[in-house]
Amino acid sequence: MQKKIEVGVLGATGMVGQHFVKFLAGHPWFDLTWVGASDRSAGKKYSDATSWRLEGEMPAGVRDLIVEECKPGNAPKLVFSATDASVATELEQAFAIGGHSVVSNSRNHRMENDVPLLVPEVNHEHLAALAVQKANRGWKGQIATNPNCSTVVLTLALGALKQFKVKRIIVTTMQAISGAGYPGVPSMDINANVVPFIDGEEEKMEIETQKILGAFDGKSFQPLAAGVSAHCNRVPVLDGHTETVSVEFEQKISEQDILNAFATYKSKPQDLNLPSAPKRPVIYMTEANRPQPRRDVEREHGMTVFTGRLRPCPVLDWKFVALGHNTVRGAAGAAVLNAELMQAEGLL
Amino acid sequence: MQKKIEVGVLGATGMVGQHFVKFLAGHPWFDLTWVGASDRSAGKKYSDATSWRLEGEMPAGVRDLIVEECKPGNAPKLVFSATDASVATELEQAFAIGGHSVVSNSRNHRMENDVPLLVPEVNHEHLAALAVQKANRGWKGQIATNPNCSTVVLTLALGALKQFKVKRIIVTTMQAISGAGYPGVPSMDINANVVPFIDGEEEKMEIETQKILGAFDGKSFQPLAAGVSAHCNRVPVLDGHTETVSVEFEQKISEQDILNAFATYKSKPQDLNLPSAPKRPVIYMTEANRPQPRRDVEREHGMTVFTGRLRPCPVLDWKFVALGHNTVRGAAGAAVLNAELMQAEGLL
Amino acid sequence: MQKKIEVGVLGATGMVGQHFVKFLAGHPWFDLTWVGASDRSAGKKYSDATSWRLEGEMPAGVRDLIVEECKPGNAPKLVFSATDASVATELEQAFAIGGHSVVSNSRNHRMENDVPLLVPEVNHEHLAALAVQKANRGWKGQIATNPNCSTVVLTLALGALKQFKVKRIIVTTMQAISGAGYPGVPSMDINANVVPFIDGEEEKMEIETQKILGAFDGKSFQPLAAGVSAHCNRVPVLDGHTETVSVEFEQKISEQDILNAFATYKSKPQDLNLPSAPKRPVIYMTEANRPQPRRDVEREHGMTVFTGRLRPCPVLDWKFVALGHNTVRGAAGAAVLNAELMQAEGLL
Amino acid sequence: MQKKIEVGVLGATGMVGQHFVKFLAGHPWFDLTWVGASDRSAGKKYSDATSWRLEGEMPAGVRDLIVEECKPGNAPKLVFSATDASVATELEQAFAIGGHSVVSNSRNHRMENDVPLLVPEVNHEHLAALAVQKANRGWKGQIATNPNCSTVVLTLALGALKQFKVKRIIVTTMQAISGAGYPGVPSMDINANVVPFIDGEEEKMEIETQKILGAFDGKSFQPLAAGVSAHCNRVPVLDGHTETVSVEFEQKISEQDILNAFATYKSKPQDLNLPSAPKRPVIYMTEANRPQPRRDVEREHGMTVFTGRLRPCPVLDWKFVALGHNTVRGAAGAAVLNAELMQAEGLL
Repeated sequence: MQKKIEVGVLGATGMVGQHFVKFLAGHPWFDLTWVGASDRSAGKKYSDATSWRLEGEMPAGVRDLIVEECKPGNAPKLVFSATDASVATELEQAFAIGGHSVVSNSRNHRMENDVPLLVPEVNHEHLAALAVQKANRGWKGQIATNPNCSTVVLTLALGALKQFKVKRIIVTTMQAISGAGYPGVPSMDINANVVPFIDGEEEKMEIETQKILGAFDGKSFQPLAAGVSAHCNRVPVLDGHTETVSVEFEQKISEQDILNAFATYKSKPQDLNLPSAPKRPVIYMTEANRPQPRRDVEREHGMTVFTGRLRPCPVLDWKFVALGHNTVRGAAGAAVLNAELMQAEGLL
Repeated sequence: MQKKIEVGVLGATGMVGQHFVKFLAGHPWFDLTWVGASDRSAGKKYSDATSWRLEGEMPAGVRDLIVEECKPGNAPKLVFSATDASVATELEQAFAIGGHSVVSNSRNHRMENDVPLLVPEVNHEHLAALAVQKANRGWKGQIATNPNCSTVVLTLALGALKQFKVKRIIVTTMQAISGAGYPGVPSMDINANVVPFIDGEEEKMEIETQKILGAFDGKSFQPLAAGVSAHCNRVPVLDGHTETVSVEFEQKISEQDILNAFATYKSKPQDLNLPSAPKRPVIYMTEANRPQPRRDVEREHGMTVFTGRLRPCPVLDWKFVALGHNTVRGAAGAAVLNAELMQAEGLL
Repeated sequence: MQKKIEVGVLGATGMVGQHFVKFLAGHPWFDLTWVGASDRSAGKKYSDATSWRLEGEMPAGVRDLIVEECKPGNAPKLVFSATDASVATELEQAFAIGGHSVVSNSRNHRMENDVPLLVPEVNHEHLAALAVQKANRGWKGQIATNPNCSTVVLTLALGALKQFKVKRIIVTTMQAISGAGYPGVPSMDINANVVPFIDGEEEKMEIETQKILGAFDGKSFQPLAAGVSAHCNRVPVLDGHTETVSVEFEQKISEQDILNAFATYKSKPQDLNLPSAPKRPVIYMTEANRPQPRRDVEREHGMTVFTGRLRPCPVLDWKFVALGHNTVRGAAGAAVLNAELMQAEGLL
Repeated sequence: MQKKIEVGVLGATGMVGQHFVKFLAGHPWFDLTWVGASDRSAGKKYSDATSWRLEGEMPAGVRDLIVEECKPGNAPKLVFSATDASVATELEQAFAIGGHSVVSNSRNHRMENDVPLLVPEVNHEHLAALAVQKANRGWKGQIATNPNCSTVVLTLALGALKQFKVKRIIVTTMQAISGAGYPGVPSMDINANVVPFIDGEEEKMEIETQKILGAFDGKSFQPLAAGVSAHCNRVPVLDGHTETVSVEFEQKISEQDILNAFATYKSKPQDLNLPSAPKRPVIYMTEANRPQPRRDVEREHGMTVFTGRLRPCPVLDWKFVALGHNTVRGAAGAAVLNAELMQAEGLL
């Protein structure tokens, strides 16, 4: 067996960082050997510096790693960024300047014109922007990003339908509390309640979706000129964002066209047999009342988007329900799959 | 003080019936003197026949009423129907034939072409159908209905904007468990979960909305030729349906037009000062994250629809959030307000 | 009508402070004219300084009050303390030294040997400690306290049974999230979960119960020499602490003795007809599955403790369930009732 | 590899039956080849007859089994009983008379004087009653039972401490909704609520605990003469019964004695290396706020009881928290472990 690639996690002690640590445990290609966090944690053992919040126990391999300051240098060439938006801009740039490949879950660089915002099944060709990015910025390293958790669910479902040319989308999300980190949403706010607002979320969904479904023309990104309207809500669910989607296509298509597209959807991650790629990126459930977050979100290791309830939309063309795992496919798993694709494409 | 009008409730021991009993307690015009239920309960005291499921205690005035069989005859002229859809068609007709005014929360007669489907603020003029109904059917009595709980929330919010001519609507609901009665939704289904399906609900919302926002031309109903698309979901909330609404109008209108319309909305129930009419049928909340079901649904005695988060919709024209109390404004309170309107208009 | 007594609230912008503001709205004796908070809030209007977290709207009368620094001087003679434990010790003392009567919900002074820890129905005679306190400390003012929210529920239920001489108690609590303030318990911790630990809560329940059920001998408190063992848990309930109680008495007593004691329980607050005193401090519910927090906690304005399920305990003598409103009877309402008693006894 | 033993499940289409089907999937010794249910289901494929309610998909191996009537004869020698209490008494007897070994999760025969009520780690020696049972009843087959789900959690934790001679126990349970089957607890009853009553549960916990911790003297069972007092509550948790336990021992023992007993606890199922036996039947968690049902219940395949928060009890001797998986260790897993023990002991 080939030697594994050493990887690090920036912001490893936080909630998103913990999701990276959990997702990377036992990874066949990547070996987590370096954890970075704030000065306050640096120098401590990871197990001492971290209040482990996830179900199950802290992976054994990371317990005794010494937390490092988040500075380039000793860190491995490949680092995953789980850093807070308040510091991610400069911190990630510093690592890219220092020659690291930064595969980031943070929102800071997502919308920049030479930074790929990847959902590997949907827009793997956007990786071409990395060369432009290096040229533009004179960096030895590079930054690649994955979208916001609610965007991933929508775009992966629509990715299967990309060939029909999406024209207009109205989506309403019912998002899990784990999407807000820890301590995140106070129980006094969400117990037996709905909060019909998540700060900045709708804007992110709208513009990220256009970028992901758009094209990279060799110089910059041309967002899809589709109308995208998002209504984002928090609901008392632990994991899994459920989304109701109404969509209009340039082409008139049948129910069977869509079901076939969902059933046969495969893309580069599946062709390359990437370790974290789901066998089927989208699974359509035929039961009348599925998918449901609590019952379905953990299936397929959280990397598949489940759809269901396809039916005609009296306003746009078709409507359906989509569900995805916000902390897996929508965060740590998304970034790791990005890195796997980059590795397979010789970009690391 | 004038003598109160005696009223009865059909299906009084069930969950919807209990909501009627609670809502009618202390009513200034109506005196609940008659409760009807299945043969199994008939002859018992209401307090013995009923497993009271609502917060607070069973109203004192109803405890000792003897439950009657659901047959016309001894029942008061005005009866509210909380009967199950499986029996409501014939049962309500029998009372109408028998000379009773049946003000029903059941869905069975809602879509008939001479039966008004009322939201008094929005389409009080549909009451004109009652005379046609009597003529058509040769009934001494009559049937009037209120819409499905999720429809009321949507149409009352849109009622305030009716003047701008609604053209297309996409709505996603997040509906409370109390909407499903008792025992209703199993906790195993909804605990920390979303169920993206409520049987028959979307169809009801779509056609009822068109009827309510449409016209009665003196002979029959002309539904509004607007596209209406509903996505209906159950969420773990006790009371209150939250709805995200995207809407397109025939006229191009401004944010201020809509806010003014919400702020100044009044209609016949307010003009007539009906006892259950809210002072303001729609209240727009300016806080960024409101309305919320748990925090807002009990305000204004549950008879007002709360709106919020008005913003441009990139696909249709405007989008906003609406919230209403499903068992009050969406059921018992809706029917009682209908009866108040009928009484004030001399139709009882 | 007599002129109302002006009162203030220390820590008025926090969650407990808001409960005071809400509870005092429309109070027949007390007029809230002064709100104190941290320097950061001082000088602002209360409505600007406060993120109102409670169901319903902020009371009109407090909206325009200017928040003052928490310093004695301009404050009214009677102040309620909702200050955080981290500052309450000195802050409350400063007010007492400055001649104010401090009626506190904070835990800091509760266990001091000349400070009454009051549940007015149970140990109103402990007010005698106030004179000793003033003498001991040379204060012009004074401090009186109410117990921890979980203690109130237990001691009020046991207060009704005091005559039988409580010997040993084992109690398990299932406590609402509102007991932890705001933001309080993260939803990631309590959604569909039980947390079997509340820091410091068991110790407080055990020693406070002994003090409340004990005697004041004219010089100091003689705690009841009863064994008290508490197991404290957090559950996903909004309001209302539910407690399962096993209790042993010095005297052997019958089920009927206990039911009679619950049914006939009245004490000084009822005799004095204090405005916030419940007509019945304890109400025994006969339904097999009651009391329940969501269904019962708001009854009787939240000032009554509901008991139920009395049955023999195979280990101690009797067991039952008790429920009380943690933010009303267990916090703001407790303190206001204390102040009413002090006023009625001429101690203000 | 040895040929697997064919097994059947009585009541296979119900909720408990589904838990058996799920637990038996891939079992190394047992091969589920026969599923029995009511006449209504008989003749259908299992996948057609069953509304699968569990997380994850129906195991492939059972989908095409034809549901049989619940009659002895064609059924395998070993059958697990998930039948409803309303029919279990006679149905299980019929199978035992017919020569089958019935390993039952139903409560009906648990307390009979020649029927073992097993928690294999705690009272495996009670299997000796099977020979007596056969002699008493003239059966070719036999019936063995496992306790109620809440009893298993308590007795397994106390089993580790059996050597210290348990004298008195007061336990309060906070039980998951999955314990009530499907549809089970209505969401209207348990959403954001506690129900302090589960019909018959306290009686079962009290007498079953005495039987399990007692002795079989070769003729009949001598229940432990310990006082056991249970307070049983339903809380809005999906899986996992949490129990607060106060316990008194005949011997005075130290904290370290108990921690050692928990840490080193092993018994016959571990010695025999039974396939479903957890490596450690009891794991003590040292974190201050653990165990918690949502975070811990799935660990160790749901077969371990987690304890925590050991501290002195001011009334009895010691108190702690215990958590176990009600549908695994408390139901299907319990019965399968019983059968494994019987097989290993040559009793099948």
